[in-house]
Amino acid sequence: MLDRIRIVLIGTSHPGNIGGTARAMHNMGLADLSLVAPRCEPISADTVSRASGADPIVHAASQVATLEEAVADCTLVVGASARSRTLPWPMTTPRELAESLPAELADESARVALVFGREDSGLSNSELQRCHAHVNIPANPDFSSLNLATAVQVLAYECRLVWLAQQAADAGDTSAESVASTPHALANHQELEHYFAHLERTLVTIGFHNPTTPRQLMARLRRFTLRARPERMELNILRGILTATEQRTRRPEADE
Amino acid sequence: MLDRIRIVLIGTSHPGNIGGTARAMHNMGLADLSLVAPRCEPISADTVSRASGADPIVHAASQVATLEEAVADCTLVVGASARSRTLPWPMTTPRELAESLPAELADESARVALVFGREDSGLSNSELQRCHAHVNIPANPDFSSLNLATAVQVLAYECRLVWLAQQAADAGDTSAESVASTPHALANHQELEHYFAHLERTLVTIGFHNPTTPRQLMARLRRFTLRARPERMELNILRGILTATEQRTRRPEADE
Repeated sequence: MLDRIRIVLIGTSHPGNIGGTARAMHNMGLADLSLVAPRCEPISADTVSRASGADPIVHAASQVATLEEAVADCTLVVGASARSRTLPWPMTTPRELAESLPAELADESARVALVFGREDSGLSNSELQRCHAHVNIPANPDFSSLNLATAVQVLAYECRLVWLAQQAADAGDTSAESVASTPHALANHQELEHYFAHLERTLVTIGFHNPTTPRQLMARLRRFTLRARPERMELNILRGILTATEQRTRRPEADE
Repeated sequence: MLDRIRIVLIGTSHPGNIGGTARAMHNMGLADLSLVAPRCEPISADTVSRASGADPIVHAASQVATLEEAVADCTLVVGASARSRTLPWPMTTPRELAESLPAELADESARVALVFGREDSGLSNSELQRCHAHVNIPANPDFSSLNLATAVQVLAYECRLVWLAQQAADAGDTSAESVASTPHALANHQELEHYFAHLERTLVTIGFHNPTTPRQLMARLRRFTLRARPERMELNILRGILTATEQRTRRPEADE
């Protein structure tokens, strides 16, 4: 899916933004970049610096004169734009757009273009009208213009999340949960109860706890401990601390 | 909600990234920036250029020497990090993190810090171990390091979407969620660090811990404790236990 998403930059002025776009694309697993009539030399020291290793994407980019050429083979063309224009167009959000992509790209020949305009003036009305839809990144209405590479990042990020979810689903739903770091074996109920008993003995030994006037102490310590879902190894450490505490507090009376 | 989210940048080398971070924050409606030991002059021509009008956020940023100072009043500290480390820590995604924020910030005194490390080396293990959780932006495993300001953008974007959804919900339906029980005040970062320092002293006192051969002991105890999200009152109980332990182990030597 990601290999059939093209990023199209129109009339970019700053090579750093081309480099930054390449980095954002490569970070998110995109590779297809098209530069339409750039207003700067696409490959410069700034490009390479901001690309931070992703400059092969700029080297491989197509460079064309018009939006038409850049998106000729695309089945869906979406332009990044602020919300209101004189002629309202179908609007989407980055998330809605991304969620539509598996269906949009179901056919192997399908291609999607995400089109970004000039740093200073965005896309022209004529360019916007060549798009199937406009996508707007929800932003502070008082300061709504994102950096170009940053805007590419947000859209590419949403695309990647949908792709990852699709990969997980395809993998036969060994999904979501298993991505989370697998914890070590959790302590079982019995081990926890042995720990709480040991804890209570130790608290009595050090004079912190009087079982005849408990003040909910053990209940509070239980709640705290259980909330953390202790692993067996962690419980072993905690019991080791209790044992060391008991040895230190008992030894003087016993030895001397 | 957005006004109680702090972006913390540690050891930033490039003023352009500070400017880019300010722009991303202002675009998404965030304003609280803290710079920890920057390795560059925070305000420079590059800062102003990349901030593109958001440089007041940099001017208003706090500048401190340590992560401790930057997050002392925060009730949740989340560090941006790659997935795997020697000691696995609770991991979250930008979306999961953002979705947890309305609950995390329900209490007016709650503050959340999102912590970003150095451009070249990220966060140190010691810094990562001061975080409740780590957040990882899903990225191309072969090219996973995002530009700093771009990473801030992704997290801030997810925060803004949740905030917008909350605004929309508040405008329509003033019911359900607000009935949820308000938790007790969580311990803030400074209180937790005082506890960990006290814990380490006590473990040395009882002979359980040798700081010269630490075997990841403190890291494991931190991870366990942070996972439970201790309330202030619970931390008071735990510190009371430590104090009682110290008194019991020291007294014999002093008295006899």
